[in-house]
Amino acid sequence: MRIGVLSGGGDAPGLNAVIRAITKTAIFKYGWEVTGIIDGFEGLLTPTKTRQLTSWNTRGILFIGGTILGTTNRGNPFAHKTVVAGREIVEDMSSMVINNIKELGLDVLVVIGGDGSLKIGSGIQKLGVPVIGVPKTIDNDLMATHVTFGFQTAVDTATEALDKLHTTAESHQRVILLEVMGRYAGWIALEAGMAGSADVILIPEIPFNIDKVTEKLLDRKKAGSKSSIVVVAEGAKPAGGEMAVREKASDGYVLRLGGMGEIVANEISRRTSFETRVTVLGHVQRGGSPCPFDRLLATRYGAAAVELIAQKKFGEMVSYQPPLITSVPLEQAISCLKLVEPEGELVKIAEGMGVSFGR
Amino acid sequence: MRIGVLSGGGDAPGLNAVIRAITKTAIFKYGWEVTGIIDGFEGLLTPTKTRQLTSWNTRGILFIGGTILGTTNRGNPFAHKTVVAGREIVEDMSSMVINNIKELGLDVLVVIGGDGSLKIGSGIQKLGVPVIGVPKTIDNDLMATHVTFGFQTAVDTATEALDKLHTTAESHQRVILLEVMGRYAGWIALEAGMAGSADVILIPEIPFNIDKVTEKLLDRKKAGSKSSIVVVAEGAKPAGGEMAVREKASDGYVLRLGGMGEIVANEISRRTSFETRVTVLGHVQRGGSPCPFDRLLATRYGAAAVELIAQKKFGEMVSYQPPLITSVPLEQAISCLKLVEPEGELVKIAEGMGVSFGR
Amino acid sequence: MRIGVLSGGGDAPGLNAVIRAITKTAIFKYGWEVTGIIDGFEGLLTPTKTRQLTSWNTRGILFIGGTILGTTNRGNPFAHKTVVAGREIVEDMSSMVINNIKELGLDVLVVIGGDGSLKIGSGIQKLGVPVIGVPKTIDNDLMATHVTFGFQTAVDTATEALDKLHTTAESHQRVILLEVMGRYAGWIALEAGMAGSADVILIPEIPFNIDKVTEKLLDRKKAGSKSSIVVVAEGAKPAGGEMAVREKASDGYVLRLGGMGEIVANEISRRTSFETRVTVLGHVQRGGSPCPFDRLLATRYGAAAVELIAQKKFGEMVSYQPPLITSVPLEQAISCLKLVEPEGELVKIAEGMGVSFGR
Amino acid sequence: MRIGVLSGGGDAPGLNAVIRAITKTAIFKYGWEVTGIIDGFEGLLTPTKTRQLTSWNTRGILFIGGTILGTTNRGNPFAHKTVVAGREIVEDMSSMVINNIKELGLDVLVVIGGDGSLKIGSGIQKLGVPVIGVPKTIDNDLMATHVTFGFQTAVDTATEALDKLHTTAESHQRVILLEVMGRYAGWIALEAGMAGSADVILIPEIPFNIDKVTEKLLDRKKAGSKSSIVVVAEGAKPAGGEMAVREKASDGYVLRLGGMGEIVANEISRRTSFETRVTVLGHVQRGGSPCPFDRLLATRYGAAAVELIAQKKFGEMVSYQPPLITSVPLEQAISCLKLVEPEGELVKIAEGMGVSFGR
Repeated sequence: MRIGVLSGGGDAPGLNAVIRAITKTAIFKYGWEVTGIIDGFEGLLTPTKTRQLTSWNTRGILFIGGTILGTTNRGNPFAHKTVVAGREIVEDMSSMVINNIKELGLDVLVVIGGDGSLKIGSGIQKLGVPVIGVPKTIDNDLMATHVTFGFQTAVDTATEALDKLHTTAESHQRVILLEVMGRYAGWIALEAGMAGSADVILIPEIPFNIDKVTEKLLDRKKAGSKSSIVVVAEGAKPAGGEMAVREKASDGYVLRLGGMGEIVANEISRRTSFETRVTVLGHVQRGGSPCPFDRLLATRYGAAAVELIAQKKFGEMVSYQPPLITSVPLEQAISCLKLVEPEGELVKIAEGMGVSFGR
Repeated sequence: MRIGVLSGGGDAPGLNAVIRAITKTAIFKYGWEVTGIIDGFEGLLTPTKTRQLTSWNTRGILFIGGTILGTTNRGNPFAHKTVVAGREIVEDMSSMVINNIKELGLDVLVVIGGDGSLKIGSGIQKLGVPVIGVPKTIDNDLMATHVTFGFQTAVDTATEALDKLHTTAESHQRVILLEVMGRYAGWIALEAGMAGSADVILIPEIPFNIDKVTEKLLDRKKAGSKSSIVVVAEGAKPAGGEMAVREKASDGYVLRLGGMGEIVANEISRRTSFETRVTVLGHVQRGGSPCPFDRLLATRYGAAAVELIAQKKFGEMVSYQPPLITSVPLEQAISCLKLVEPEGELVKIAEGMGVSFGR
Repeated sequence: MRIGVLSGGGDAPGLNAVIRAITKTAIFKYGWEVTGIIDGFEGLLTPTKTRQLTSWNTRGILFIGGTILGTTNRGNPFAHKTVVAGREIVEDMSSMVINNIKELGLDVLVVIGGDGSLKIGSGIQKLGVPVIGVPKTIDNDLMATHVTFGFQTAVDTATEALDKLHTTAESHQRVILLEVMGRYAGWIALEAGMAGSADVILIPEIPFNIDKVTEKLLDRKKAGSKSSIVVVAEGAKPAGGEMAVREKASDGYVLRLGGMGEIVANEISRRTSFETRVTVLGHVQRGGSPCPFDRLLATRYGAAAVELIAQKKFGEMVSYQPPLITSVPLEQAISCLKLVEPEGELVKIAEGMGVSFGR
Repeated sequence: MRIGVLSGGGDAPGLNAVIRAITKTAIFKYGWEVTGIIDGFEGLLTPTKTRQLTSWNTRGILFIGGTILGTTNRGNPFAHKTVVAGREIVEDMSSMVINNIKELGLDVLVVIGGDGSLKIGSGIQKLGVPVIGVPKTIDNDLMATHVTFGFQTAVDTATEALDKLHTTAESHQRVILLEVMGRYAGWIALEAGMAGSADVILIPEIPFNIDKVTEKLLDRKKAGSKSSIVVVAEGAKPAGGEMAVREKASDGYVLRLGGMGEIVANEISRRTSFETRVTVLGHVQRGGSPCPFDRLLATRYGAAAVELIAQKKFGEMVSYQPPLITSVPLEQAISCLKLVEPEGELVKIAEGMGVSFGR
């Protein structure tokens, strides 16, 4: 049996742990071979880019962020984009990919990816290649699994930033804003905000009213607080209160630099006497050594993927349903996003403790 | 409504987060009052030791290890020990404690504790004082909840030590041993060992044969590995192979200093040519700022305890059944330990990837 | 003898360590008393804001970022600003401050601060109050001392961010920019950039040519590098190459949000095909527990300040001239900034290893 | 020009940074070649073990603990030990090593090492091979340089352990002991003890009286402290007070397991009512990613070594004399150890703040 492994989409701490677990379990437990495919689905085009994975070259990678195989959004075989003579051409190259998979001698393909990559995996499965999915989204927004690897590491990084901001916030009369990842799902902002004792948390799922935000900040000042901390998901959206998100120039809107963290900061200082300071974490949240929780979760995912292969349960995605790793059909896995529920337990707990979501 | 809060037993990172969540939720959401009881059940003896908890004096404690209230194993009201004239006297002081609870005006007592403390809490409940339990055991050995706070922080600390040991192990031909907590349950050793890429993991639930351990180490050397890393739970037990755990002197056994980590190291170097080095983590594992996972879990426990009070569900312990916080009767909560299953998923995964448990 | 202690200006990790060392040394070694002045020079106005410092209330603060006394830029007694009826009034309130110092019974004032605060301290000394200075600038830009506390902690935080960015940069074809503190002095950018393996470092002392920056990035791509990392001091300045720092709208310049990190990123993606990502660390660099190096340095500063008092060497600032803590006259201490030398050793080493400063 | 690089003796975080700086500076600045020698002087025996170093294979190693070349105490060419028929034979193999250096085409040898390795380097220089030394000792006990790389990382690790022990110590009436490295020099214990707020610090340079230690602990208890923290260098020595370091059995002394940390703990609990807990850090202190201070220092050492070669200043060791990197003759470099001065500044500061050294 020869297993092919690839990773598609963005980076998430723990990718190497999945790759290592698949490799070691396949080799030590089943005596199979493992072929790593470089740079996601791109590595399955002609010429193919692959690398034989062994217990030696997957050694010591458990701790390392990033991935030894590369991961990319490019290379969708069903809608492959190339630029010819300045024009983008989109082609279906899936039959070439299927051929290449056969030429590489792969009996099964493990696709580690989010929404998009798993959908491609599902398409490949339909074309006759057995596929196993491993969920990967740092935003933790897949309904089909309790939690995804990389998410806890991102929360840890954001929380550590909040811890540092707290000590310095205390010395000054200031509002400090931390912009974190989360374009559609506010999980990182919510969990880091709660673990890092934010006063205001703004997430995509709960559009905020800027007047409610400043009201909260002024209330805190009145109650004697020297400073306040606001966590802003990059995808947070204003629901009300006039905000100068873009500035109108006479010839139309001028796009500003600066994300939602800076926009909110600007608005707060425009409406109050507070000095504001902004930290934008950006890709720091995707990097670094995976935290032990993510290493273990990713290891369990990888080992479970090999067990699914052993049981010939193809077309499934491994899924964490605590305390067990189980599996769900790929089709079902990608059909539903898990967003923060505006009236869910975590939001209610936070509000019950005095945190404002700007509503 | 006035809530009393106390913590019994050993330390666990996240205690302050529970105390803060109870206090803030009770005050902000329900307008209740919270009395912190100092030094566990001892604080309920005469004279009582208490402290009014407010949103101000629980501010900034979310990050802090230890507990602002103190926690201790002493002061069991049902079997209270004092030393009078050199003799230890054990008395039932429960009626005094019940009286003191009434005099303090407490309507309900929240007991944060393990096995022992929750049993006392259950006893107090039977004497007519409403009690809510919050599970606390750094060893994560309670069957009634998916995971306890403090455990992940301990795993993080142990894993970080393993990460450091790996880099230095590589430079030399050595066996490095890490002794971690776990007198009866091997969860910390198991999860840190897997997250930290240990080659051998010795836990109380799987008695080890020292010959199997050295066999594994020699196999690794033969396969070209420069070094090996062994994680030893403090409660690991030898099952076979002659081990010089104690040295026989002519007048009987001489108790040695040094825990199981050093005993195993000594045995390995006695039987092989390997140099060994031992790290004993000890209480470092109980200290430090709780990791974000533990802060959030502890916060959810604390908030859920207050909700149980609001629902008058007394005699219950909050319990994490992912994704929900729910509750179980105190009686049931303390009746069953959760040990590592020698044939369970995690052990099987580890063995499938080549880790030895010395069996 | 009664010592007054205050801190002026911005925050720096290690402030509490100085305060603790002064307090403990004064009390344990000399039997003196120590009065903490709250919120810098503001605490010396009427009414004064002070707090008796003891070995108990300075306990456990060595690890804690921020300061238990508060620090602020306001309250310059020689040019005190108040707003009366909407108009800012500037007054010399130094005689009031001198009177208050006498009424508080202070025999000597220890001023922990940068440039500005030490100048005020020097002015107070001239009015007859013995003053001792302790240097504080997170930017490490004082000529009179080898290094200031807080700086190494800031470098550690910035380097840790770079470490995380490296792992994720590798997985994608990207340029990642990290904006760090340093309005006038580029030390944090330089040292973190070297310790964190940046490819380009932009600092105020070496105005950069954006064409040289993109040239370097393109060279790296040609040589096979998947990604590049650029560290930008907030005060970095373009020297040449046309840069769209502000965008001209028909009615004049439109101020953008976004600091120099984003401006450079925008320019890079405008001129090349590179995707860019920006992290802005901001106040995260001022916060957090001081690193052990800073704790020890701050402790030595604090203890040395007390020894200067014991020797009646007033009007001096403690200074680290490795391996010794010595002192220099306050006057001299504040007269000279230490900037990165464009042809100095560190810059030359970095360039010798292939780092570009955009020149 | 072809440079050979090797590392001898124990591990120290920063080794890879030295190797990387030598390689990059030699290649980018001077166009030279660099040969890495594997496993220290052993790699110069027949057959030689080497590896061409390039900017590609030294990429990404700045952050990594350990060394890509290996480091070992074996292989002294002037007194080479082999075991023949069960008997250890010591031979002078230096002429073979000189021949091999010539056959490898090395024009100069950079020896990264402590006392012992630099002495060998000095011997090789006398035999006609140009040698440059780079100091390496995690104990920071070389007089010829202000500080060595790896030391600050070890201090950071030990201080972090102390931070964690503090939070848990507070919850219980306990004495917690931390055993750190330092067989002959107490620098790690001293600096970590001061940075981590230890109450007692025991170092080889100041033999301790166990009665003074317990006296200090009892004084603290009387003054209201719940707990105390004792840092013990592995080489700390008792000067007085009867200590049961070994236990006499009727047939002679029985060697115990357990280092000085456990011996002192045992003695404290034998003489007082304090419960004790021991953490033994061991090799954790040698591992992990070098801290930014060490990365920068090691980088400066490596670059300076190449500059010495460019200037043909052979037979010298690079030396940090803040703020400069300079050099000293190898002969002089290895002739003098730098121990903690019992009446030096740091010890005096610590004692002035109430720390006991058990004297």
